[in-house]
Amino acid sequence: MSLVVMKFGGSSVADAEKIKRVAGRVIDKKKAGNNVVVVVSAPGDMTDDLITLAEGVTDAPDEREMDMLLATGEQVSIALLCMAIKHKGEDAVSLTGPQAGIHADTTHTRARITKIIPTKVHDGIDKGRIVIVAGFQGINPNEDITTLGRGGSDLTAVALAAALKADTCEIYTDVEGVYTTDPRVVKKARKIERISYDEMLEMAGSGAQVMQARSIEVAKKYGVDIHVRSTFTKNSGTLITGEEKLRRREMEDVVVSAVTFDRKQAKLSIVDVADRPGIAARVFGALAKGGVNVDMIIQSAARDRSNDISFTISRGDVKKALALLEKVKHDLHANDIISDDKVAKVSIVGVGMRSHPGVAAKMFETLSKNGINIEMISTSEIIISCAIRESEVDKAVTVLHKAFGLNKR
Amino acid sequence: MSLVVMKFGGSSVADAEKIKRVAGRVIDKKKAGNNVVVVVSAPGDMTDDLITLAEGVTDAPDEREMDMLLATGEQVSIALLCMAIKHKGEDAVSLTGPQAGIHADTTHTRARITKIIPTKVHDGIDKGRIVIVAGFQGINPNEDITTLGRGGSDLTAVALAAALKADTCEIYTDVEGVYTTDPRVVKKARKIERISYDEMLEMAGSGAQVMQARSIEVAKKYGVDIHVRSTFTKNSGTLITGEEKLRRREMEDVVVSAVTFDRKQAKLSIVDVADRPGIAARVFGALAKGGVNVDMIIQSAARDRSNDISFTISRGDVKKALALLEKVKHDLHANDIISDDKVAKVSIVGVGMRSHPGVAAKMFETLSKNGINIEMISTSEIIISCAIRESEVDKAVTVLHKAFGLNKR
Repeated sequence: MSLVVMKFGGSSVADAEKIKRVAGRVIDKKKAGNNVVVVVSAPGDMTDDLITLAEGVTDAPDEREMDMLLATGEQVSIALLCMAIKHKGEDAVSLTGPQAGIHADTTHTRARITKIIPTKVHDGIDKGRIVIVAGFQGINPNEDITTLGRGGSDLTAVALAAALKADTCEIYTDVEGVYTTDPRVVKKARKIERISYDEMLEMAGSGAQVMQARSIEVAKKYGVDIHVRSTFTKNSGTLITGEEKLRRREMEDVVVSAVTFDRKQAKLSIVDVADRPGIAARVFGALAKGGVNVDMIIQSAARDRSNDISFTISRGDVKKALALLEKVKHDLHANDIISDDKVAKVSIVGVGMRSHPGVAAKMFETLSKNGINIEMISTSEIIISCAIRESEVDKAVTVLHKAFGLNKR
Repeated sequence: MSLVVMKFGGSSVADAEKIKRVAGRVIDKKKAGNNVVVVVSAPGDMTDDLITLAEGVTDAPDEREMDMLLATGEQVSIALLCMAIKHKGEDAVSLTGPQAGIHADTTHTRARITKIIPTKVHDGIDKGRIVIVAGFQGINPNEDITTLGRGGSDLTAVALAAALKADTCEIYTDVEGVYTTDPRVVKKARKIERISYDEMLEMAGSGAQVMQARSIEVAKKYGVDIHVRSTFTKNSGTLITGEEKLRRREMEDVVVSAVTFDRKQAKLSIVDVADRPGIAARVFGALAKGGVNVDMIIQSAARDRSNDISFTISRGDVKKALALLEKVKHDLHANDIISDDKVAKVSIVGVGMRSHPGVAAKMFETLSKNGINIEMISTSEIIISCAIRESEVDKAVTVLHKAFGLNKR
């Protein structure tokens, strides 16, 4: 018998009607002859509501207690979903993260899963029950409740699928799957049938919102097939799997799989830096220590023994980055630090690029033909990214999507 | 150093301001040189809100899942209270019922505590922390979360105080303590300084709302001193303790400690029952099996080989009781079953009665002098109860309170 892990996000269990619909969906899967393990997030806005409660009590909530508080959200979901399933006559049992044997490290509010000992999950399956597990939470070596941070419920589902050697991990969401680009920007965006872990990782890293990179990494490591699909329709969605299972697609000559973008970038430029060894190390070392992730970097040609260094970061990190740089400014002998927060990034992703030269050239040409200025470039084996003006994102995405043959036929 | 268990009910932690006030109160107790363990209920209406959620999903929620759901309420309270205490600079740690080692039996929604293994509570105390425990919940032998039913948080507090050999268990509530009668009925009602476990048990059983009998039973069994007091004032409240500690009071000749009442009773009469052995056993056996508690019983004198049997029950049980009796009616050869739901009960409670003859006579006389008809009577060593018309409760309580010298001086 197949074992399927089904994961439903908060919007899928936001109220009684939605919970009942999910219950029906889960029962259908079970009745089709599968063993079923369900992972759920907290209902709708409950996590935000709990955070508001905490903020009413203190402006700096203790992190252990924050986990104690937030973990109640998923516990509410699993209990309600389990009741709904039993009400429809199917046997089921709910388990908190700790009960399901999700072990995590001692970092509160963003713990990493260390191991899974799913004894009670197996027990439930062996008794023919649908097993419902609280996402986003685990138990740490002190036997405290921890939470797994952003994308935590997806991670629970994928890691549990790996531990249980499930046949597939279905991630239910409010879209039909992974798209060639954001359909709100390009109406002709198409649903992708199959995509590799590596492409999905690059997509997540370059602005696509479907899944967090950490879950994809675990899926890749353990070879878990992820099926991203809609809570509201029965259509098949997008299969995220290993490249070896995707060979056939490459033969069909798909070079670029998707166009992604991130509107919320910022560019920092350090002007007239002394041209000495170790300067870049100092700049980026300081930023890394302060927890600021740097994306693209340009160092301009030296003139009169001084350089400009420019780089992009998330717009939310600008204030922090400027404060960190202010501290090292004197050591750099830099004239000025300039920030520009109207920068965005557009990227093309595809494993097909490897065997097709000229993809980068085509991207640059497409943008330039359409009057879009490229301010920075970064490339890797399966992704090419360009920093452009924020105001030109929609145009850039639209022309690239068309140029690489991704428009709906 | 003294160890104090402090218990706060849901209304004391209903919002951020109240939680902060409780935090201050707890810290004061700690700073006065005590080790402090706090037990809290779910905030305000949260339990009701969770029940409403469950009812949205099914009309007959699975009991295990109901416990999984309801246990989140106290978990929210302990996390918020712990944050509030840490915010004020005092070290604290929260524990769910299972984490605190509250073990219970497998009966869901109304489990009994079987044992307490408070390892983590001791750990916290040893580290100088205020330990905050979720009331109302425990873990059963299947490692499932259970809840303890009505009065469960008081029970957690008292049982934990017993297991920890605490010096006192303080029950914080929205009244100043235990009163000689309900101050809403008799303005001259006085707060009782000290009262015995047995008197408190009789009061709880005869309609006083302060504490459930089950917590008092545990306190009596393990000799836990309970101090019932107000969340909102610093006044001392009522000490519930063993009779041996109350000797002095008896010397002061307090015969009756309190007047209690229960407005919501009903009287059932089975008319013209055959006067044969075993009939009463059949009637009350059927009711007991069906979970209906019978209070007072009268069997009228036999005339022509047939009897009337009358008894009182909680008004909420009338429908169930009538259904149960309908089944045995034929066996009883009874003519009719009559229900009367305008009945109430008024009681006087006091250990002093034992050594003072004539207390019952004084009660009956007082009621009759005031034109109040007594329909049934039941007596035990320290309580005398009379069934009367519901419409006469206020008058009966007022005149008895005065007659037994309980009015405020």
